[in-house]
Amino acid sequence: MKQRTEERMDQDLAFLLRYENIAWYEDGVVKILDRRIYPIRVEHVICKTYAEVAEAIRQMVTQSEGPYIAAAMGMVLAVQEVKDRTKETILAQSDEAAYALSHARPTTSRQMQAVVNDARQVIRDALAEGCFGQALVEAVHAYALHYLNEKYQRYTRIGQRMEELLPQRATILTQCFPGTIVGTMLRACRQKGKEVILYCAETRPYFQGARLTASVACDMGADVTVISDNMPAYVLMNKDVDVFLSASDVITRDGHVINKIGTFQIALAARYSNVPYYVTGTPDPQHRDTSQIVIEERDPRLVTESMGQKITMEGVKGYYPAFDITPPEFVSGVVTEKGVLSPYELDRYFDE
Amino acid sequence: MKQRTEERMDQDLAFLLRYENIAWYEDGVVKILDRRIYPIRVEHVICKTYAEVAEAIRQMVTQSEGPYIAAAMGMVLAVQEVKDRTKETILAQSDEAAYALSHARPTTSRQMQAVVNDARQVIRDALAEGCFGQALVEAVHAYALHYLNEKYQRYTRIGQRMEELLPQRATILTQCFPGTIVGTMLRACRQKGKEVILYCAETRPYFQGARLTASVACDMGADVTVISDNMPAYVLMNKDVDVFLSASDVITRDGHVINKIGTFQIALAARYSNVPYYVTGTPDPQHRDTSQIVIEERDPRLVTESMGQKITMEGVKGYYPAFDITPPEFVSGVVTEKGVLSPYELDRYFDE
Repeated sequence: MKQRTEERMDQDLAFLLRYENIAWYEDGVVKILDRRIYPIRVEHVICKTYAEVAEAIRQMVTQSEGPYIAAAMGMVLAVQEVKDRTKETILAQSDEAAYALSHARPTTSRQMQAVVNDARQVIRDALAEGCFGQALVEAVHAYALHYLNEKYQRYTRIGQRMEELLPQRATILTQCFPGTIVGTMLRACRQKGKEVILYCAETRPYFQGARLTASVACDMGADVTVISDNMPAYVLMNKDVDVFLSASDVITRDGHVINKIGTFQIALAARYSNVPYYVTGTPDPQHRDTSQIVIEERDPRLVTESMGQKITMEGVKGYYPAFDITPPEFVSGVVTEKGVLSPYELDRYFDE
Repeated sequence: MKQRTEERMDQDLAFLLRYENIAWYEDGVVKILDRRIYPIRVEHVICKTYAEVAEAIRQMVTQSEGPYIAAAMGMVLAVQEVKDRTKETILAQSDEAAYALSHARPTTSRQMQAVVNDARQVIRDALAEGCFGQALVEAVHAYALHYLNEKYQRYTRIGQRMEELLPQRATILTQCFPGTIVGTMLRACRQKGKEVILYCAETRPYFQGARLTASVACDMGADVTVISDNMPAYVLMNKDVDVFLSASDVITRDGHVINKIGTFQIALAARYSNVPYYVTGTPDPQHRDTSQIVIEERDPRLVTESMGQKITMEGVKGYYPAFDITPPEFVSGVVTEKGVLSPYELDRYFDE
């Protein structure tokens, strides 16, 4: 973002969604709002090196779009750490950082690689132009800011597409944290004078729905109710829900949605209740189908605990598959910045 | 239970299921294991009056079959409180206690009435025979113990029916706390040399699956894994589950199952994965269909908290419908002490 020419796209969004609270490079460090504990405590993790950013991503300090922004900002730190060394050292460092940042979590690794590879290209181009030292850091920072603002421009368009799908008074069921789009959708609804009622599945074990989605909606003045993860079918059948909405970690070109565990069983219940399921995101050119998808399994202790409090007897195991796969027949539409696509015609997204 | 003649039916069951830990009259008080915090802390609530027992039921100190036993033991306290007063006072007290105990929670009120009405009959009969004072208390206590042991006899038979449905090495998904039947089923499997692998949905907001079902299974040596409530569909599709099992709060004569919120969406996912859903319990002669069913809505704060820890921002609402309804087309069989019935032929249960 060339700050003088580009308009910041985070105006009127919730605290959680403002640039300074995602992953923000300033004064030589990257600060990341700790989404694991927000809004119970408002704390930022301060990263002084790209390795600390990679570790923060791995530890899920941030999630949803957060890791992508953090990876871009992490590349700034990577260059800053060696900015006065040789070109070869800088290039080797940028390769190492790109790998570490994009592989911090397995399921989304391919999309993360796109972000860091663009940063590497910026670094190579700048070096080729004789740009070194602080100027090089600033070139990568400009890339990261521009990447962030472009993402928000895209979210703004997707939020507008979502708004167009909603009636004047809309009841929406959400899963996990559909990220910035919750904010841009609510902003678009406000601009159009539409009233929104949200039911947010809490999304164990991290409670992203209760803590993040509900907080964003509440911050932005929506009517918001949290339910536990065993209630979506009941709410779908009893609360005149217009839309089930989730974001996606990966959408394959053949229309499968990989998203936070639980999405599929809500989509199944939505189908049973004749409620459409809309997913935001873009088809991933790297994944034609689900054959290369790795479902990440995270620390089982997170399931046998809640907010750090042990809830099971010693000897009881936990199991934590982080994502599931919803087949295209349960997806009413894929909401992209280019429009709402059928899951069966996602190749159209790549048409010019 | 005439203790000299009746064999106690709680041998080899988990701590949680032993008589002294359900609702137990001794030394003039009723002690109830606090299932809201077990196994994190092992504490009993001590009730000195029937009103305290009713309040304990309302506060969900115990649940599943616990409230029924507690109601029976509460009737002992009711008589004890006025044992040396007039017959009219004792009868009035027993009417009041019967009402308070059976109406402590709305959804299961009809079944609770059966228990307390039998106790009232015992009291009336004893009074008619000239039984007063401590002898009267002992008559009601004998009724309560007999009621408890008969319940366990029935659970033993249901556990045996469940065991017969399972392969030699069985993987079972559970919802909430299917009560004593988890224990009697595991005991029956052990007697038959069958190996059982359990996946327990944690069951927010009270975590009955994580805390109660998993503890019972672990206590009894089963291989047990807890999952959060957004994972059942994934486990059903990926873990070779043989059976989805739940208990029931009410089974209507036309085959609808009223049980802990979430049961229906798991049943839906089980159907999608071709996993049979078996429900334990007995059809309720009082409920021909769902028209008289009241779905209890409990304190919404329980959903915006987890283990007493607030998880949402101020201004975010909660919603807590405690039960849902699973229609008969999703029920593979109703496992009763008389055998496994189709949900469409439950009237057979009442045939002699």
